[in-house]
Amino acid sequence: MDVEHIRSILHEAGSRVCPMSWAEGRFSLLDQRVLPHEVKWLPCQTMSDVKNAISSMVVRGAPAIGITAAFGMVLALKDGIERGIGEIHDYMHTVADSLKSARPTAVNLAWAVDRMKAAISRARGDLFQTALNEAMAIWEEDVQANIKIGLLGGELLPEDGGILTHCNAGALATGGYGTALGVVRGGIGLGKSLTVFADETRPWLQGARLTVWELMQDDIPVVLNVDNASGYLMSNGKIGAVVVGADRIAANGDVANKIGTYNVAVIARANAIPFYVAAPVSTLDKHTPSGRDIPIEEREAAEITSFAGMETAPEGTEAINPVFDITPWEYVTAIITEKGVLKPPYDSSIAAVVSE
Amino acid sequence: MDVEHIRSILHEAGSRVCPMSWAEGRFSLLDQRVLPHEVKWLPCQTMSDVKNAISSMVVRGAPAIGITAAFGMVLALKDGIERGIGEIHDYMHTVADSLKSARPTAVNLAWAVDRMKAAISRARGDLFQTALNEAMAIWEEDVQANIKIGLLGGELLPEDGGILTHCNAGALATGGYGTALGVVRGGIGLGKSLTVFADETRPWLQGARLTVWELMQDDIPVVLNVDNASGYLMSNGKIGAVVVGADRIAANGDVANKIGTYNVAVIARANAIPFYVAAPVSTLDKHTPSGRDIPIEEREAAEITSFAGMETAPEGTEAINPVFDITPWEYVTAIITEKGVLKPPYDSSIAAVVSE
Repeated sequence: MDVEHIRSILHEAGSRVCPMSWAEGRFSLLDQRVLPHEVKWLPCQTMSDVKNAISSMVVRGAPAIGITAAFGMVLALKDGIERGIGEIHDYMHTVADSLKSARPTAVNLAWAVDRMKAAISRARGDLFQTALNEAMAIWEEDVQANIKIGLLGGELLPEDGGILTHCNAGALATGGYGTALGVVRGGIGLGKSLTVFADETRPWLQGARLTVWELMQDDIPVVLNVDNASGYLMSNGKIGAVVVGADRIAANGDVANKIGTYNVAVIARANAIPFYVAAPVSTLDKHTPSGRDIPIEEREAAEITSFAGMETAPEGTEAINPVFDITPWEYVTAIITEKGVLKPPYDSSIAAVVSE
Repeated sequence: MDVEHIRSILHEAGSRVCPMSWAEGRFSLLDQRVLPHEVKWLPCQTMSDVKNAISSMVVRGAPAIGITAAFGMVLALKDGIERGIGEIHDYMHTVADSLKSARPTAVNLAWAVDRMKAAISRARGDLFQTALNEAMAIWEEDVQANIKIGLLGGELLPEDGGILTHCNAGALATGGYGTALGVVRGGIGLGKSLTVFADETRPWLQGARLTVWELMQDDIPVVLNVDNASGYLMSNGKIGAVVVGADRIAANGDVANKIGTYNVAVIARANAIPFYVAAPVSTLDKHTPSGRDIPIEEREAAEITSFAGMETAPEGTEAINPVFDITPWEYVTAIITEKGVLKPPYDSSIAAVVSE
């Protein structure tokens, strides 16, 4: 299991973009803060590098954060072994907690870190090789899950027309194929004639910067719109379905995702447009009963009072900057996972695919 | 009737911001493209200057556009008289059509131009003075209408809490007091303890740049949020009412306003939050049966592929940029005009206040 193998799977599936790499004991990330103007790779040599990359949004998207954190565990273990730390398992516990604190909302982060911890605990023989194998497995499984999500979700889409998406739940948000955009790729693979309408997604503009760029790399038709135009597009018959990703899905089906997802869901319902959430099973959080129990990250006001270093609001402006919102399960037509398309009542359909 | 008189009315009503001026045969506009960083006045010496100012959005907001166009007629008339144009009424017809074409959606533009044409046609004696008096009357009546709207609308607001607004329907969008923000001023005048939550309002950021700036001038509490956070704010109990302005209201009560207004209306309904539209009677268009009949301006893609002058999307990005949307009357709790608070069924309540 190596990077070349994963790349060949992605290549065969028609996805040219992959946001991460592992080579010669070093993990690298495509710096998503400077896309689309610069295609720059950021090398991570230590767990701290990885943690900083996650909190500063070099990498974003719940599945991609999970995979990245897994490689953070690999780098920490390598470092611990080299420094001759005796209580390596205690050390890895501390590392795990630290990595989990990098961002609070995405559940895949904790999920991947816990899976790495368990693999390391179980390991007999070469600890480092075990950890590296586990991280590579998490990555490859994510890619395979996305491809499966794409196949299952692609069938749900209309034969042609516009698909609205919010933020970037594409190759860049995952191990390289995408959840919401994976569904679009799946639909196109089935011969459907689809155009993606990309919400620009303020404040970080993941739609304008990442979704548009990624789809252009793969020659998938894409039209950019401001978030404010999503209602106009839906009420004017331009949208056949909405597909978004998720940062965490509670046991009752409530969905935490990029701020503004709830807006899109409510407007889709008012226009009788199906609203699909595409996410791997690792995003389902059976320990969180409902959306009310999901912590919502608030980031600094400066992210919305300025852009690219330019002030956009008066000096001294007070601002509120929640970066996720909760879409109640009632608005979700289906949750597309690699283990099947889940329908309401979600408490039972989610429980059925989440193992103990 | 002069500018000082209007300024004293505004001053007494507690509004320190006025976006236009007339002095020594010259009309000046506060350049709203460079606010809040620069407070720059743009002199308009000719009708063409005025038309350019409208189409390039030096001035925006339906009532402010109407008043500005009225002064465009004054400047054209002055020019026509000075150039000794014989068929002055034919000339003013041509000027009127040209001014009306500056922007298609706001009905106040056509309304003000037609009113000026009628006054000039009726005039006996000094044509120029008649035109100037009519333009000043349009301006003062707008201010008085806004103050009345503020009084009527202020009573509808809750005693305290957050009021969400979209775009800028304030002093800067009118003759100097505001429609939606006039309602907030009215509520505060009644002793209510209100905080305005301002949608930043992409793509032009009228919320971040203008609403926040204007309210800060008058010491009214204001918190900035990205458009995507409006749903989060409403579903988390932070908003007691939504108040917006309008660019045109059809005979059935459908409202054309800044892109994203429809989004806010649908989400307000889902959260049982009242959604108020504040607009002078001049915004009511009895000749337009419904929202379907209102032309929606689309502007160039560059406005959304860049942000504050910086490219945000990849080169060659396709984009759709409608700048208004239609909120169906069913979502509108009430339309607050200077002639009363209109309730559904709007076809009859609108007809009752619009004179033949």
